Amino acid sequence: MKKFFSVKDVASVSEVVNEALEQKANPYALESLGKHKTLGLVFLNPSLRTRLSTQKAAMNLGMNVMVMNMDKDGWALETQDGVVMNGTTVEHIREAAAVMGEYCDILGLRSFPKLKDREEDYSEDLFNKFIEYCGVPVVSLESATRHPLQSLTDLITITEYKNSKKPKVVLVWAPHVKALPQAVPNSFSEWMCQAQVEGLVEFTIAHPKGYQLSEEFTNGANISNNLEESIKDAEFLYVKNWSSYEQYGQVFPVTENWMMDNQKLALTNNAKVMHCLPVRRDLELSAEILDGPNSLVIKEAGNRVWAAQVVLKRMLESLAK
Amino acid sequence: MKKFFSVKDVASVSEVVNEALEQKANPYALESLGKHKTLGLVFLNPSLRTRLSTQKAAMNLGMNVMVMNMDKDGWALETQDGVVMNGTTVEHIREAAAVMGEYCDILGLRSFPKLKDREEDYSEDLFNKFIEYCGVPVVSLESATRHPLQSLTDLITITEYKNSKKPKVVLVWAPHVKALPQAVPNSFSEWMCQAQVEGLVEFTIAHPKGYQLSEEFTNGANISNNLEESIKDAEFLYVKNWSSYEQYGQVFPVTENWMMDNQKLALTNNAKVMHCLPVRRDLELSAEILDGPNSLVIKEAGNRVWAAQVVLKRMLESLAK
Amino acid sequence: MKKFFSVKDVASVSEVVNEALEQKANPYALESLGKHKTLGLVFLNPSLRTRLSTQKAAMNLGMNVMVMNMDKDGWALETQDGVVMNGTTVEHIREAAAVMGEYCDILGLRSFPKLKDREEDYSEDLFNKFIEYCGVPVVSLESATRHPLQSLTDLITITEYKNSKKPKVVLVWAPHVKALPQAVPNSFSEWMCQAQVEGLVEFTIAHPKGYQLSEEFTNGANISNNLEESIKDAEFLYVKNWSSYEQYGQVFPVTENWMMDNQKLALTNNAKVMHCLPVRRDLELSAEILDGPNSLVIKEAGNRVWAAQVVLKRMLESLAK
Repeated sequence: MKKFFSVKDVASVSEVVNEALEQKANPYALESLGKHKTLGLVFLNPSLRTRLSTQKAAMNLGMNVMVMNMDKDGWALETQDGVVMNGTTVEHIREAAAVMGEYCDILGLRSFPKLKDREEDYSEDLFNKFIEYCGVPVVSLESATRHPLQSLTDLITITEYKNSKKPKVVLVWAPHVKALPQAVPNSFSEWMCQAQVEGLVEFTIAHPKGYQLSEEFTNGANISNNLEESIKDAEFLYVKNWSSYEQYGQVFPVTENWMMDNQKLALTNNAKVMHCLPVRRDLELSAEILDGPNSLVIKEAGNRVWAAQVVLKRMLESLAK
Repeated sequence: MKKFFSVKDVASVSEVVNEALEQKANPYALESLGKHKTLGLVFLNPSLRTRLSTQKAAMNLGMNVMVMNMDKDGWALETQDGVVMNGTTVEHIREAAAVMGEYCDILGLRSFPKLKDREEDYSEDLFNKFIEYCGVPVVSLESATRHPLQSLTDLITITEYKNSKKPKVVLVWAPHVKALPQAVPNSFSEWMCQAQVEGLVEFTIAHPKGYQLSEEFTNGANISNNLEESIKDAEFLYVKNWSSYEQYGQVFPVTENWMMDNQKLALTNNAKVMHCLPVRRDLELSAEILDGPNSLVIKEAGNRVWAAQVVLKRMLESLAK
Repeated sequence: MKKFFSVKDVASVSEVVNEALEQKANPYALESLGKHKTLGLVFLNPSLRTRLSTQKAAMNLGMNVMVMNMDKDGWALETQDGVVMNGTTVEHIREAAAVMGEYCDILGLRSFPKLKDREEDYSEDLFNKFIEYCGVPVVSLESATRHPLQSLTDLITITEYKNSKKPKVVLVWAPHVKALPQAVPNSFSEWMCQAQVEGLVEFTIAHPKGYQLSEEFTNGANISNNLEESIKDAEFLYVKNWSSYEQYGQVFPVTENWMMDNQKLALTNNAKVMHCLPVRRDLELSAEILDGPNSLVIKEAGNRVWAAQVVLKRMLESLAK
């Protein structure tokens, strides 16, 4: 594996989930695989879960880890070619990426969208250039449009906790005070659509009008604007806010109450409730659910380690060849 | 040991000091104890000595260390329950602590008081909630009211450098330009009071009127407002500024000169001088003392490693059970 | 080796380059040399290449690494003696350095000049005091006047890529939008002058009038204000901006075009082009050169590891004695 950026980077989601669960059952079995290998984690935006879980996964595999918080260093990167660099950008991504590739065997990169210009964000220009110039395998720690380690984690968690062969999984939009990226729901949706193709889940998306995601990510999903109807018989609810894709980055007033709570939970098949965290309590998701028996959010966060570990394992194996 | 927050978390201060000195004599003897164990250090406030010495101690024990500088990430934590999180706090401590507990076998937390509301600070609400929700052993890296790794360090240092069986130890207030927490003197006092009970020291506190500490921490100490009288025959002077506990967080003009200098040192039994650092030279403590033969401040700072190491050792042993 | 601050800290530049190339050929041969040894990297200014490459080198030698970004912690250090510390400085360098020396076997320090007061910057007061007070070997990660790890890297790179026994190397001034320190060119110059003494290179410096470096660093170099003439027959061009030493820290308008491009490159002996990075594209150096076959900048950055590794190796060997 030379790149982990979208669901297309794995041939089969079932296979990668099973491989991750093997890592979870035996965390240190491959401790010699990463000996003398260095993982560099580059954060252009803050991170808690992703940094800790990926570091942990790398250490389980015997790797060294170096973390670069570029957001705090104010080391502004130039991404455009043909620009005379007489402004505020200090280094071009061509050099920055190539140099990091000199010091690291595998690189991870986090870069959020600006939510100003849809074409720019959805071009994934920065990420693609980083991959192109660094010369080593790259794992996405969340890009402008996707968060694949989170989505793999989510499928691992669903696989562990499902009660039926093909559980109904519903991605449910939730309210928030800020305009958030579509990366998590895009990514969750493309992974669930593929899981549906492989016969692992039945997948539905529920959101208010105006919040449809790009079709690129939702192909095969059942999409509804009716919250109560869509969550009927659900075995898993995946609660998440996102801003509009159509009116890019905008937030509209939603008159109905989309916060997930016990009353709505009662309509489901005793659904397990998931969220990628951080979660706004009693805004996106009720405290009673988060503190109750149906919440999987902490176990889900814990599984981030195994998603990262299987990806790093595959990349280390490809280096060894 | 599941918690290291106050002197009450050790059955005997003599025992823990002796165990720490064994670690110092043989730093790598227990290097296999921490294999595959991860220490997470969470800083809500800056740190130099605490971070480096605790990291070093963990590495001596063979642990992996992950550091989270949450103060710099601006990742504001919500601590109150029943709050609709539609403001500036991004994550509730319930989730944040629990998630860190998923990735780490032991957690360290630093959180300073705000010095605005005494009840809030002295409730240690944040710390207690972190301990409750994270699900793994927690070592205090300094809380609103205590700095136990510093106090254990100080008793180790006194044990190493004492000339008599039961030396006179005096905690002496000193001037400063800022309003500082009571955490270090509170903690030093509760550790010295317990050391006095165990027959290791005789303990006196000297401060100007208005600067008395909470009685919760000073039970058994000899307390005086007369600097020169109180330091007579002292074998150890522990110099430290703090703001008022009574008029919480306030700083009063003090007309007498409380800065420790050679003239005052002459009144003691050639006392060794200690300070937790950072120290304001020629304000709290004279440069001549700091650069002279009576200063223990650097050796004291060096001993921070062994305080941290014995605490981590005990926690690792309790995990192994 | 107790100090790596200037070219004077190595007896022979040829020897240290050869030793570095041995490390490069066999990166993990000395992995047991650094066991139980800790490197502390103290940054008073931001760093990308230096931090990553030095961390990597230390890990190759089996060392533990602790990084302190003091610039971000806002932990202002006092460097003057005899000052009553009642202002904004929190800790004196005497204590800060000594304490770090308690926790680390080797320390690295980065501290940029302020470019306000030449005497202050060129006294290297902070660096000298840090070395004096910390009590352990110190490697410069760039000081006010020198960047020796960069210069050693550059000589390693020239040695690897040279086509003739004694190649002509030219340090060429380049335009920039900011006033930059003289540390890199000073250091490059003192290393090249010594390399010239040892018969390894022929060394020329080309810069516009007003940009002469301090003679302390350029003794033996051929110095010219004529760009085109000076680069004739050059086998290596080392492109770098710096502010004025004479009119300290000032930047003058330069009417001629000093940006290095293919047209000027054609005047050389098909010179390899070097730059310490970060580089401003199409301002200091043309994009066509950076993306073309003559650029060594990425390989040069990669060699930072071996410069750091040979220095740490020598320091570890001196500790073992």
